[in-house]
Amino acid sequence: LLTGMTDPHPRQKVISLLRQEQLDAVVFCQPENLRYLCGFTGSDGVLVATPERLVFLTDSRYTTQANDEVTADDVAEYKNKAESVAAQLTSLQAKRIGHEAGLTVGLFKEFCEHGATDWEWVLTKEAIQQLRLHKTAWEIAEISAAADLNLEAITDIAPMIRPGVRESDIALALEFALRNKGAEEKAFDIIVASGVRGAMPHGVASDKPIAEGELVTIDFGCRRSGYHSDETVTLAVGAVSEPLRRIFDTVETAQNKALDAVKPGIALAELDRIARAHIEDCGYGRYFGHGLGHGIGLEVHEAPVVSPRSQMVAEEGMVFSIEPGIYVPDLGGVRIEDLVAVTATGKEILTKIPKTFRNILLN
Amino acid sequence: LLTGMTDPHPRQKVISLLRQEQLDAVVFCQPENLRYLCGFTGSDGVLVATPERLVFLTDSRYTTQANDEVTADDVAEYKNKAESVAAQLTSLQAKRIGHEAGLTVGLFKEFCEHGATDWEWVLTKEAIQQLRLHKTAWEIAEISAAADLNLEAITDIAPMIRPGVRESDIALALEFALRNKGAEEKAFDIIVASGVRGAMPHGVASDKPIAEGELVTIDFGCRRSGYHSDETVTLAVGAVSEPLRRIFDTVETAQNKALDAVKPGIALAELDRIARAHIEDCGYGRYFGHGLGHGIGLEVHEAPVVSPRSQMVAEEGMVFSIEPGIYVPDLGGVRIEDLVAVTATGKEILTKIPKTFRNILLN
Repeated sequence: LLTGMTDPHPRQKVISLLRQEQLDAVVFCQPENLRYLCGFTGSDGVLVATPERLVFLTDSRYTTQANDEVTADDVAEYKNKAESVAAQLTSLQAKRIGHEAGLTVGLFKEFCEHGATDWEWVLTKEAIQQLRLHKTAWEIAEISAAADLNLEAITDIAPMIRPGVRESDIALALEFALRNKGAEEKAFDIIVASGVRGAMPHGVASDKPIAEGELVTIDFGCRRSGYHSDETVTLAVGAVSEPLRRIFDTVETAQNKALDAVKPGIALAELDRIARAHIEDCGYGRYFGHGLGHGIGLEVHEAPVVSPRSQMVAEEGMVFSIEPGIYVPDLGGVRIEDLVAVTATGKEILTKIPKTFRNILLN
Repeated sequence: LLTGMTDPHPRQKVISLLRQEQLDAVVFCQPENLRYLCGFTGSDGVLVATPERLVFLTDSRYTTQANDEVTADDVAEYKNKAESVAAQLTSLQAKRIGHEAGLTVGLFKEFCEHGATDWEWVLTKEAIQQLRLHKTAWEIAEISAAADLNLEAITDIAPMIRPGVRESDIALALEFALRNKGAEEKAFDIIVASGVRGAMPHGVASDKPIAEGELVTIDFGCRRSGYHSDETVTLAVGAVSEPLRRIFDTVETAQNKALDAVKPGIALAELDRIARAHIEDCGYGRYFGHGLGHGIGLEVHEAPVVSPRSQMVAEEGMVFSIEPGIYVPDLGGVRIEDLVAVTATGKEILTKIPKTFRNILLN
């Protein structure tokens, strides 16, 4: 049973943004925003949005695709991107024009050169980030379906997680399993960090073989219909030492406490505090160096941030990760990650791999 | 026998760039430039370069990796990227500061906010692009080794290219073969375009099954030690019609003529003209809509461009593609692509898959 806000159509969101930021137009270039606002799945195009019109511009490589995919008032082909954008803005009589923070300085300079001297360009960072903040039930179902593939893939490859197998072999097998099950792409380079390498939060898979008595952290995800999953499990290979087991239990409890607290109205900084307080109480405070989580959707990392610095409050339709970790240099590490969607009354956990302590029994 | 310029160390190249552009410092953020100039293979960091010092900055996720990999005078960790960059520039007494065209407006604005008001920021597009223009023998050998994987992978999967197999199945099998042979990653989403889909230059693999009598264009490549290969073959599945065969022969001859002409001193626009003239003479001029080729190295597309608008002349150490194509709507298309390295006296072709007309015989 998936819930989520029934969002206004993206076009209405753009109109609200224009009104709120007092802009005549916004120029969107980021592929995820293009996909969200007008359906274009290619890698290069521009959406010029005014309260009255959405105009999509692309080059000859993508014209056929754009005509098939794009919902806009007009789809036009350009030879020169900046020239074409400036011409559209002129004909739409826009003077105060918003743009994304991710626009490159090179392209921005071209826009300025082709535009009129009296135009005002406005970096519109937060308001654009918030366009995709509240997911619809359909979007949440897509993220959940991408998480289904995680469960299927790791179930398939689980038998190979044994002493002597290289981290990189596990990562490759997991990636192939995700793709064979229909994932468009992995969400990011798969992290497989075993033994002392587990102390690196970003330890992408190396050629190190897994050894008995180690913890193995596997952080992975995939893309399906443009939406991403992201999930982390930590497994024990044979009997692990008491200090490692204690770290695992601490992270597991910290994660469960934070998960239990997710509901509309709670401050995201408070979720971080709940997990962090437990880790600190157990004496591992200085080994948890990153924030508790991040929003996810068309991008693997998007709004909202879940950290001590978060200003936002959980709202229905937000989807984010809860992923506390403890990383002890020269000993090892544990991270456990699930994705949650905030519902009208609480939350739904979208990731499905069991996170309880799992000992891979060796014979 | 691989040849290439013996380039000055990247540090010397940066010093020349600073002198030539009269800059006190350059701020590099693009991962490929970081890898090239100081050896960092992570995804997030900054290199601040002055004539006297190279200072590499990154966050806590990458500090261990940076200390292992980076060749610089100093490696420092930041909490706030822009603040840290500004502090470095202040201590290095830089006033006139170059930056890449790909820098985002959001980060650029933060740099400006943290910097002094009398600093002059200079978009340094062409000079930075040219840093990686001339490849060393080592770099050319890496690209060639990535091209070896192309040949091995397509040889492996060749038997599956038969009527009834979906384009997407071929693309997936080719990707897996590349990875199993040691590629770090595919170079880009693999193009498999059969039949009328061959008329789309950017037809990524679809669910369309291949049919007898079709041409199939396969455009693919991989990354190895950071360097990319890129290669296109067009194959005939069973007997193809005379018009398709004529298109193939035209593209093949156009490609061979351009390849034959590659040597130091020839204008890159002239290479494009040679291929285009043959295609025009055969009556297909309006069906060749893109440029003849592009540079390749740490990026799949980098300097130099090979097109009618190219201003550069071929020089020893340049590596670029030669990839003419003919795309006839509702009929089909052909593209043939090889990579060449310009040597002291001529060229070396780095890609190894035979490009002559190949009919997949059906039984």
